[in-house]
Amino acid sequence: MTKPTEGRRRVIIEGVEPQVDSGRFPAKRVVGDRVTVEADIFTDGHDRISAVLLFQKEGEEGWNEVPMVPLDNDRWEGSFALKELGRSVFTIEAWVDHYLTWHGDLKKRVAAGQDVTLQLVIGARMIASATSRAEGSDRASLLEAARLLESDASIESRLERVYREDLLALMTRNADRSMATRFSRELTIVADPPRARYSTWYEMFPRSAGAPGTHGTFRDVEARLSYVAGMGFDVLYLPPIHPIGMAFRKGKNNSTTSQPGEPGSPWAIGGADGGHTTIHAELGTMDDFSHLVRAAAERGMDVALDIAFQVSPDHPWVKEHPEWFLMRPDGTIQYAENPPKKYEDIYPFNFETEDWEELWKSLCDVFLFWVDKGVRIFRVDNPHTKALPFWEWAIGEIKAKHPEAIFLAEAFTRPKVMYYLAKAGFTQSYTYFAWRNAKWDLTEYFTELNEPPVRDFFRPNVWPNTPDILTEQLQYGSRPAFMCRLVLAGTLSASYGIYGPAYELGEHVARHHGSEEYMDSEKYEIRQWDLDNPDSLRDFIARVNRIRRQNPALQSDHSLRFHETSNEQILCYSKNTEDHANVIVTFVNLDFHNTQTGFADLDLEALGLRPDQTFQVHDLLSDARYTWHGPRTFVELNPHIVPTHIFSIQRERRTEKDYEATI
Amino acid sequence: MTKPTEGRRRVIIEGVEPQVDSGRFPAKRVVGDRVTVEADIFTDGHDRISAVLLFQKEGEEGWNEVPMVPLDNDRWEGSFALKELGRSVFTIEAWVDHYLTWHGDLKKRVAAGQDVTLQLVIGARMIASATSRAEGSDRASLLEAARLLESDASIESRLERVYREDLLALMTRNADRSMATRFSRELTIVADPPRARYSTWYEMFPRSAGAPGTHGTFRDVEARLSYVAGMGFDVLYLPPIHPIGMAFRKGKNNSTTSQPGEPGSPWAIGGADGGHTTIHAELGTMDDFSHLVRAAAERGMDVALDIAFQVSPDHPWVKEHPEWFLMRPDGTIQYAENPPKKYEDIYPFNFETEDWEELWKSLCDVFLFWVDKGVRIFRVDNPHTKALPFWEWAIGEIKAKHPEAIFLAEAFTRPKVMYYLAKAGFTQSYTYFAWRNAKWDLTEYFTELNEPPVRDFFRPNVWPNTPDILTEQLQYGSRPAFMCRLVLAGTLSASYGIYGPAYELGEHVARHHGSEEYMDSEKYEIRQWDLDNPDSLRDFIARVNRIRRQNPALQSDHSLRFHETSNEQILCYSKNTEDHANVIVTFVNLDFHNTQTGFADLDLEALGLRPDQTFQVHDLLSDARYTWHGPRTFVELNPHIVPTHIFSIQRERRTEKDYEATI
Repeated sequence: MTKPTEGRRRVIIEGVEPQVDSGRFPAKRVVGDRVTVEADIFTDGHDRISAVLLFQKEGEEGWNEVPMVPLDNDRWEGSFALKELGRSVFTIEAWVDHYLTWHGDLKKRVAAGQDVTLQLVIGARMIASATSRAEGSDRASLLEAARLLESDASIESRLERVYREDLLALMTRNADRSMATRFSRELTIVADPPRARYSTWYEMFPRSAGAPGTHGTFRDVEARLSYVAGMGFDVLYLPPIHPIGMAFRKGKNNSTTSQPGEPGSPWAIGGADGGHTTIHAELGTMDDFSHLVRAAAERGMDVALDIAFQVSPDHPWVKEHPEWFLMRPDGTIQYAENPPKKYEDIYPFNFETEDWEELWKSLCDVFLFWVDKGVRIFRVDNPHTKALPFWEWAIGEIKAKHPEAIFLAEAFTRPKVMYYLAKAGFTQSYTYFAWRNAKWDLTEYFTELNEPPVRDFFRPNVWPNTPDILTEQLQYGSRPAFMCRLVLAGTLSASYGIYGPAYELGEHVARHHGSEEYMDSEKYEIRQWDLDNPDSLRDFIARVNRIRRQNPALQSDHSLRFHETSNEQILCYSKNTEDHANVIVTFVNLDFHNTQTGFADLDLEALGLRPDQTFQVHDLLSDARYTWHGPRTFVELNPHIVPTHIFSIQRERRTEKDYEATI
Repeated sequence: MTKPTEGRRRVIIEGVEPQVDSGRFPAKRVVGDRVTVEADIFTDGHDRISAVLLFQKEGEEGWNEVPMVPLDNDRWEGSFALKELGRSVFTIEAWVDHYLTWHGDLKKRVAAGQDVTLQLVIGARMIASATSRAEGSDRASLLEAARLLESDASIESRLERVYREDLLALMTRNADRSMATRFSRELTIVADPPRARYSTWYEMFPRSAGAPGTHGTFRDVEARLSYVAGMGFDVLYLPPIHPIGMAFRKGKNNSTTSQPGEPGSPWAIGGADGGHTTIHAELGTMDDFSHLVRAAAERGMDVALDIAFQVSPDHPWVKEHPEWFLMRPDGTIQYAENPPKKYEDIYPFNFETEDWEELWKSLCDVFLFWVDKGVRIFRVDNPHTKALPFWEWAIGEIKAKHPEAIFLAEAFTRPKVMYYLAKAGFTQSYTYFAWRNAKWDLTEYFTELNEPPVRDFFRPNVWPNTPDILTEQLQYGSRPAFMCRLVLAGTLSASYGIYGPAYELGEHVARHHGSEEYMDSEKYEIRQWDLDNPDSLRDFIARVNRIRRQNPALQSDHSLRFHETSNEQILCYSKNTEDHANVIVTFVNLDFHNTQTGFADLDLEALGLRPDQTFQVHDLLSDARYTWHGPRTFVELNPHIVPTHIFSIQRERRTEKDYEATI
């Protein structure tokens, strides 16, 4: 027979949440959050259990401990606060609590009128045994109680001692945990900065920020900061700022040949001046960059850099580290391909190089270089085309030293790869939002994103447009489309971004029908934008972002709930703070051309409302106010006037009842 | 910086199914099954992947290997057959397959009219490299192909060589797996005997099988075998057959005192004659028992024993091993209690005894003793009141030697404890079936049981009655209730059982209103049963069990699907074999008093039917036949005539079209 291991540990602990892939990856929270941990904890028979949640900062010694409490059906709960950035670990310990069992049973015996003399002796012995684990005053109190319980004192006085609260606390504090079960794993939680959860991004090309006919500079970008901050953005994201290759440089509208003087694509990284740690000379100096970062910080904004791990044939690494690229039998380096398509202006790294450790280190150093320059947010270009284990290692390395760093994965690829990148460490992730347009698919997708386990590791950052994505909706939906897609982005997701000024100026012409590429895309040329165009959505965007800032319900995602509507073109959903002090209900007309009317059936419980409650709603976009009662409400949305409502629920509406006392 | 581990293993493997609690427990199948394994397998970029499923019998050396194939959305599948009883382990290995990528890309390049000269050289080198891993004829063929591809032969002839199927097979067989990813865990599957999945149980008290006024014996039971087998049962389950204690012996109707001559409860195990490995003398000898087991086997039946790990105060172990019980301060042994209730005729084992290893071993030996006597099925009494780790160890020990053993957990307790017992090793489990009566709760419960992960470890064995459970439905529902609950049991669950002859004879009087205890329960007295009562459900039960035997769809559970009906009193569900060769649709009127009519909306796809298909249904209970078309069908169920239909779907209905050729 196999010799069993210690068999007297009778408690089972399983089903622990939050837990991502059995603890293989950390769950994500932000600093200041309380982490609520749940678990199934049970044992055989009817004995009572005690359980504690153990937690500590990763790498520190000694567990902190808080008691867990039973919910229902063998489910237990405990919580701890994330006071610092970085990783914490937690686990659970639980044991059969014979004293607690005895204590509960004693009440039943007394209630049934049974003789409890012997029971008091049993209790006295458990208390006496606890003295061996207790110290100081605990020990003294326990000794006193044990003596009393086994004494000749009246049953009543002995019972009175048992029931006094301090004794139960003493026995809990000095419980016999020699046969406690420890959960088999230590689970990790990462506490990110608050901006990991709630951020509002604005992407712009610095080179288009200058005066007409000039190459824009960091100083021009600085001059535009108040414009961007004025719209309520807190992350200013710049496409790559490095020297651009000359070899196979792309021309206007992605032409495979360029004319002299054409600026090329910023993603063709590296030239004679340098590579990923060098600034494109026409943008300015490193000092100019640092100045911009500081100026942005003064306005509460972060500058986010685009890190694209690929090189132009002119990148210094091509000569310095030819072994990092795939060499073809003819001695040339393998350019990027998606056969039969060729991208000869770009060399991808060969992540299977024998020198992979040096490659990994050098790529990781790129991030660390910019962290040193004050950058803490990175948008990573196409991370899904680089070896996935690299990201887990690199982000782990960087965040171990800089837990304030934020990494946004620009991966538009298959769902499991996108999720894996998030598990492997990316703080935020691009999504399929741009292509989710119908009520059913927006509902399905955002529900999936906000359910465990996805919500524990994947933080959506949704973009109605990007320099690569001018959706059909925006091409043909005109102004209501730009308004609605912005409201959807800003209220469905706590983090969103736009590529401007194309967005606020309603840029909507594609290179050709069926394409999502912008005509005359800034990716390949310098553009001038008329920021003062009276049709600009600038004020509307500022209003939406102000609503986001003023309503904490919109600053996290997990409370998102969709409500039934009678019209397939009307989407209705809500978000709320945990205490329901702030509740936002958004309606969007998904038909950008026609007025739509319909009924919504609100889930009042989700909104923190009683079925019989009258409540006021305040449209934060139009300032209109309505008084509603019950779940069913009528809405009419005319895309040419107001294609969307963002209602704040005012629960504290005063009625005549409030005045009763003073009448 | 932390030194990364091998970073060139670019494939990720996750989401492997079947997997119970991240592989902590085995998934359950029966011998002869094909295990279909699925997993998410992906890598960065666009490279092709190859994946294999590795499997072996637990404890054997050397993996068997079968290729996996991609399904959709990065999901892959492979399968292997469970040819022997016992445990097998499996895992997955996958790698970036550069040759496969090259092979696929080459076709695209050729189709696009590109010059592929250099590509053929690249391919040739990969093939040449594979020769170092190949042997014999593989090696020769690869060498030949490599030479041809890099030769001066025409592009066409070289391409022809590339596209010949044998080369791809050769390269797959000799693939470069040096950077393969192995899934991080080895997962376990247990192959149980077929009866673990499909079994039909009949419980009876041997002592009630004798002539009037006598104590029944094993020989009397043997005489009744043809009666039981005639009803189609294949497991004959006997309550404990051991000596019954005299101390605090219970009397008729659970009286705390017994009169001289009263037989006591068989669950008060142990007397002067012996304990758990001794036979109660009045039942016969060990030889009689062995004779019964053999006689049952001749009729295709197993005898299942009830193992109740508790003792009467007269059990020999009380004297031999007082340390196995909890001693009270007054020197007496703690009897069973659920304060304030006392069960002084029973001593529970103290699983926290310091001598727990010896206790575990002795309890395990009880099973092994009876296995030696030819018993391979055990119904375990109240396993949830014994230390849960004991079961995992004991069942593991026994099944390592006797993989044919079957353990049924008689645990009616909280859901997580019931599930844990199944995970820990119990082959089958009692359920809440007896108390699931409404359409919604039957639907919800049986849906939960048949979804992963539950269905991978928990096999329901449902009982409309037991000696402890005479439900309100049976007390007041009269004959239709007995018929319907039997049909529900036998068609919802591949394993079910009844406590007879109480069931077939419609015994329905409870000890008092509100109680589920039988009046004059056989637990405390010897009963006489009139098996030839003309009202007996014997023939009906035989018919239902024959239907089960003739229809493999009813012999497993995972295909169970509920169909919509327009009437809350009409339940409709189906089961089918994987190939839909056998499909059973059952209708049950849950109102035992009134005729109910309504429409069902059948999920035709689940039934393997096309939306436009006309099909015949054959009621296997009444022999009636109907021709149906489309999903919507009308049913009328009169509880006093036919409260239920068990339809077999005949897909192969002949129509005039079948005769076209011969006209």
